[in-house]
Amino acid sequence: MKEDLLLAKRYQKEISLLEETVSLLDWDQQTYMPEGGSSSRAEQKSLLSSMIHKMMTADELFAAVKRMKRKKLSGDNKFMVDKLYNIIVRHKKLPGEFVEELSRQTSLAFSAWEKAKSNNDFQMFKPHLEKIVQLKQKQARYIGLPGHPYNSLLDEFEEGMTAEKLKPGFENLKTHLLALIHSIKKTAVYKSHESKRNPLIIPEDAQIRLCKDVIQRVGLSDKGSRLDFSAHPFTTTIGTNDVRITTNVRKNPLFAFESTLHEAGHALYELSIPEKFANTVLRASPSYGLHESQSRFWENMVGKGKGFWKYYVQKFNELGGLDIDFNRLYEEINAVHPGLIRVESDEIHYCLHIILRFEMELGLMEGSIKVKNLPEIWNARMKELIGISPANYADGVLQDVHWSLGAFGYFPSYALGTVYAAQLYSALMKNIPGIGQDIARGNFTKARKWLNEKIHRQGAKYQTEEVIRKICGEGLNTDVYVRYLTEKYRGIYGF
Amino acid sequence: MKEDLLLAKRYQKEISLLEETVSLLDWDQQTYMPEGGSSSRAEQKSLLSSMIHKMMTADELFAAVKRMKRKKLSGDNKFMVDKLYNIIVRHKKLPGEFVEELSRQTSLAFSAWEKAKSNNDFQMFKPHLEKIVQLKQKQARYIGLPGHPYNSLLDEFEEGMTAEKLKPGFENLKTHLLALIHSIKKTAVYKSHESKRNPLIIPEDAQIRLCKDVIQRVGLSDKGSRLDFSAHPFTTTIGTNDVRITTNVRKNPLFAFESTLHEAGHALYELSIPEKFANTVLRASPSYGLHESQSRFWENMVGKGKGFWKYYVQKFNELGGLDIDFNRLYEEINAVHPGLIRVESDEIHYCLHIILRFEMELGLMEGSIKVKNLPEIWNARMKELIGISPANYADGVLQDVHWSLGAFGYFPSYALGTVYAAQLYSALMKNIPGIGQDIARGNFTKARKWLNEKIHRQGAKYQTEEVIRKICGEGLNTDVYVRYLTEKYRGIYGF
Repeated sequence: MKEDLLLAKRYQKEISLLEETVSLLDWDQQTYMPEGGSSSRAEQKSLLSSMIHKMMTADELFAAVKRMKRKKLSGDNKFMVDKLYNIIVRHKKLPGEFVEELSRQTSLAFSAWEKAKSNNDFQMFKPHLEKIVQLKQKQARYIGLPGHPYNSLLDEFEEGMTAEKLKPGFENLKTHLLALIHSIKKTAVYKSHESKRNPLIIPEDAQIRLCKDVIQRVGLSDKGSRLDFSAHPFTTTIGTNDVRITTNVRKNPLFAFESTLHEAGHALYELSIPEKFANTVLRASPSYGLHESQSRFWENMVGKGKGFWKYYVQKFNELGGLDIDFNRLYEEINAVHPGLIRVESDEIHYCLHIILRFEMELGLMEGSIKVKNLPEIWNARMKELIGISPANYADGVLQDVHWSLGAFGYFPSYALGTVYAAQLYSALMKNIPGIGQDIARGNFTKARKWLNEKIHRQGAKYQTEEVIRKICGEGLNTDVYVRYLTEKYRGIYGF
Repeated sequence: MKEDLLLAKRYQKEISLLEETVSLLDWDQQTYMPEGGSSSRAEQKSLLSSMIHKMMTADELFAAVKRMKRKKLSGDNKFMVDKLYNIIVRHKKLPGEFVEELSRQTSLAFSAWEKAKSNNDFQMFKPHLEKIVQLKQKQARYIGLPGHPYNSLLDEFEEGMTAEKLKPGFENLKTHLLALIHSIKKTAVYKSHESKRNPLIIPEDAQIRLCKDVIQRVGLSDKGSRLDFSAHPFTTTIGTNDVRITTNVRKNPLFAFESTLHEAGHALYELSIPEKFANTVLRASPSYGLHESQSRFWENMVGKGKGFWKYYVQKFNELGGLDIDFNRLYEEINAVHPGLIRVESDEIHYCLHIILRFEMELGLMEGSIKVKNLPEIWNARMKELIGISPANYADGVLQDVHWSLGAFGYFPSYALGTVYAAQLYSALMKNIPGIGQDIARGNFTKARKWLNEKIHRQGAKYQTEEVIRKICGEGLNTDVYVRYLTEKYRGIYGF
């Protein structure tokens, strides 16, 4: 028993060290790697992925885990063994050659996507995406969960979630969001804002200074993290006290700031998982959705909130060498405006972007959508959901990195996290009286500690639904999100 | 036979992919990793090193290589099998746990060295260095080559080289260099230069612009390379077309420029090794000394030469927003002046810095020098060899990264490469008439192609001595270097 536990810990340690190494290979590929490195990088990642897969499916490990599962374990070890068992079972469904092939193809596809996007050339990416869709269909067959083939992919990001559950949830959300947009668009405030759109001007170096300032304020120290640039902002964990976030500077001068605060939320989660879980499967979040709830919390509930900006506006102006008044800034940050780009979307439109991608992924997995028709289907659906459609691929079907990385089934987590964030915010407000005033004084300690205690400290011991239920008294509830939006945007637009 | 070859190639491919990954872990540690990452990084490198070691010493690989060695192989495969056999034999002398331990300790020591150096605190580094010296003594015993224990470490960098051979060579070099310095110091030019030292002023951003410009001119494309910053400039190969170089900005405003040109020489070598050797042991240089000959060639023979500067001075001024006249620039670049820092040393003093380190390493290996006494011994010997001694540890015993990385036996390669570079330059001048004028026109193609053909294209097929002998008609000859120095500096100082 003791020996089984030691063996399982040794395996988990080596696996997590290799996973961190893959994260560095990824991070580097997305930040600094010269173009010429892409084919070696594909081979390196493929080799390491296959090593991880081999370890995860090793007979001696599985035998030890099964023995431990039959015995009565207690405490964290019980959670660890259960989690490890599930992960092994999932890995065992995929042949090693498949894992290697998928890793190689996605690494090549990522480089192709980068080029295709910057050249606005869908044809450059098309053969790669076709290959990846094929591989993902194959993966879904290997995993073989009941129901829609998509379920087998979704499960990697949101354990237990299904297309069948998401469809009505998203349908309901869509109806409410479209109704909200309809109400907002009728208001005088919206019409006046649209008639004289006059974007803020913030120099690039000031944008970066502000990004660096705000992550420190929310508690992200540069001892354990750093901020770089990549085509697509992301967070990745490269070691126990080494979490990297990225951003980029776009036309919208607030994009870098908001996306950085978003990634800082992810990083705070990663850095707050207790050291006792290091090098085990519990050093994780129960789901991508719960992880996203943390980034959304800081990006939206804090970073787009009135309280935060009342406190921060003066420092923002000082540090940025700017002179923007509070009302103008708060209005601009929360401006509802149909846009092409998901990661630049306002809170109201955001989930519609996700629903669109969810539909595309379902279609690609079912085979009812072909890759070659994807751009036109994308554009038509954008028109229906958001009311506009892109004039080029880079702002349309090529905008997101996910498909190039093979991350089919990931997008729903963004919507789930967005909803959870509103639920958590509401619970926090009830739980800690005066927290709103704290935030409006630039004191984020209590909010951070509350999130640490309620979420981060648990590692991956519990399922997402359990975590949310324990904190909020109920599971996923899109109505809470819709209520949050309605109240906030009624205050701004007066509908 | 066919199967043995396939097996050996598969092993080499996986090993080289893991080695490239270790290089990325290293590169990142020296460039971007946040401080908090150091303990995870040590574990990651240790795991990968131990995996490489396990693969390299795998029974099936050794059996296949021995079978192939007994058969008559021809062409590149013969070279590959011989080289691989030697590498395996060397690896087999080291126990896996030792390799793991060494990797972990050096990774931790590197982070400690960085801190110690920036805090100018030898005590912070001392326990790490003591540990590493112990491990290196142990390694020397495992390797067990005849003669001085140092030989077993040296062999990793310079196959076949020994302390016994180096001692008289360095003795001879030292005598000549000290005599040269004596002559130079008596000249009026030297005295006038010393009496009114008036360093150039080049803004940091101009220094970086010039670095980026010059590496492009000598033929380093950013498709396959990039330039970053690290405490200690270095070159590392992370993939077939992914070679990274680093520099840093120091008080000497020419340091970044010269060190970048130096590293570019290494990078040009790495990027010119033919693709056919990719993922085999032949994708390498026969020795660190031969590699260094390429960096020295570009740094010294080209980058400190009259021809190059006649051509480049105007562009240098334009790009840097400067106004420095040719004579002043050429004089400053080649100013002989006793300095504390090896990598900032002029050509004349350079090898004395190496000889000092060689002596320290011999003493540490023998046990005649204790780590705790190292600073005072260093300082005393600096006084004897260079005529000055450092006022702090950072400029003294803590200045170089090598010991923290466990690279004992590396320093002699710098002197060997410096001498080879002079020999190669002399051969090039004889071989290609008009090459001097080409360089003075900013046309480096012929020189680069000549080096490619004579050196880079061979990969690691031949021993260094063979390569040099074939090109220069003789092996290592320090007299050629002394002659080069004498002629050049007589021109400048008129002794």
